[in-house]
Amino acid sequence: MTKETFLLIENYMKECMRDSAHDKEHIYRVLYTALEIAGTETGVDYDVLITSCLLHDIGRGEQFENPKLCHALVGADKAFEFLKSRGFETEFCEKVKHCIAAHRYRRENRPESMEAKILFDADKIDVCGAVGIARTLLYKGEVGEPLYTVNDGRVSDGTGDASPSFMQEYKYKLEGIYERFYTARGSEIARSRQAAAVGFYGALYNEVSGGYEKGPAKLEEILET
Amino acid sequence: MTKETFLLIENYMKECMRDSAHDKEHIYRVLYTALEIAGTETGVDYDVLITSCLLHDIGRGEQFENPKLCHALVGADKAFEFLKSRGFETEFCEKVKHCIAAHRYRRENRPESMEAKILFDADKIDVCGAVGIARTLLYKGEVGEPLYTVNDGRVSDGTGDASPSFMQEYKYKLEGIYERFYTARGSEIARSRQAAAVGFYGALYNEVSGGYEKGPAKLEEILET
Repeated sequence: MTKETFLLIENYMKECMRDSAHDKEHIYRVLYTALEIAGTETGVDYDVLITSCLLHDIGRGEQFENPKLCHALVGADKAFEFLKSRGFETEFCEKVKHCIAAHRYRRENRPESMEAKILFDADKIDVCGAVGIARTLLYKGEVGEPLYTVNDGRVSDGTGDASPSFMQEYKYKLEGIYERFYTARGSEIARSRQAAAVGFYGALYNEVSGGYEKGPAKLEEILET
Repeated sequence: MTKETFLLIENYMKECMRDSAHDKEHIYRVLYTALEIAGTETGVDYDVLITSCLLHDIGRGEQFENPKLCHALVGADKAFEFLKSRGFETEFCEKVKHCIAAHRYRRENRPESMEAKILFDADKIDVCGAVGIARTLLYKGEVGEPLYTVNDGRVSDGTGDASPSFMQEYKYKLEGIYERFYTARGSEIARSRQAAAVGFYGALYNEVSGGYEKGPAKLEEILET
């Protein structure tokens, strides 16, 4: 791939993500992580990999406006159309389309090619560790969801919660994500970040739950009946 | 204070904070932390303390709509008017007004009374540790600010940054907050939470900066000139 081609694809990505500076940096993190993983694998088509990394989230806007849409499938189609219109060969466009369609974990559309497996792992690594915690909290703030819910006067640790919160998302998605990797290097990077996430979640739960365990009883003692 | 009085004040607080579940839980955390600190001090007027904790952020809505307003001063006036209108004695209303006006760190309006010092410390403890990190990230997400900024291809650690980000807020506000406490127990709780915040910030910086240090050079090697 030439620098000119990279800039062409990068600019199309920026156009699609122009609503949020955060999302653009996610793309670069995924790209750099993918290049690191690729260095430990053989037979990687770097043109397919780089293009897929840059364009993997270009369907986010459509999913945000209509949550029934899957951003992976929308993005795969958009990438195919964009690349075809710029003269890329159909086989190349098909390979990129597969990577993007398969980057989100679903029973259908599992990653088959090496490039698709690397993109899948690199994208999931951005949900691991401190950066995964930070991105989840930014998102919860954006949609106005709370840190935790209180049931019967106790702070829930998130397990089995019906209502959305950071704690619920941690238990439902973040806690178990360290198992699902296709590449050895991807798995290694993910596990090296696990302790930071586990430590943060534990500290947060201890800090917030302590007050609710002792506070209401102290208040009861003070208030006159 | 009777339970009926507590409920009266609690309901007024909920009315003022009805736009965000997160803010209501902040109030309970501050109240429970304040009661813990109060147990280690003498001569605490619990009626003043509890009322001040419940009402300390009722001016937030006004400050959000007009950032030139100070929520501590607006809230102090609102609390005074509310309590007077419900028949509380002027001296009590004045004491609560002082606590609320002084809960935000400013050169003017420093906390003078024991209750004001306890509220100040309890409120600042909610900016310490993992909960301080989590609340800051929720807020950054709400206002659409990024995790970090990239200067000359490197992730800034936040020091001296001109543009707002989580990293900038950490360096500007969160990192140094552990020094400013009026009570011994407040200082102790804050310091017990410091390691969680320092650890999270360090892990986040390492995770995000590593890619930007090596990624662009790898990309340069791959791309044809």
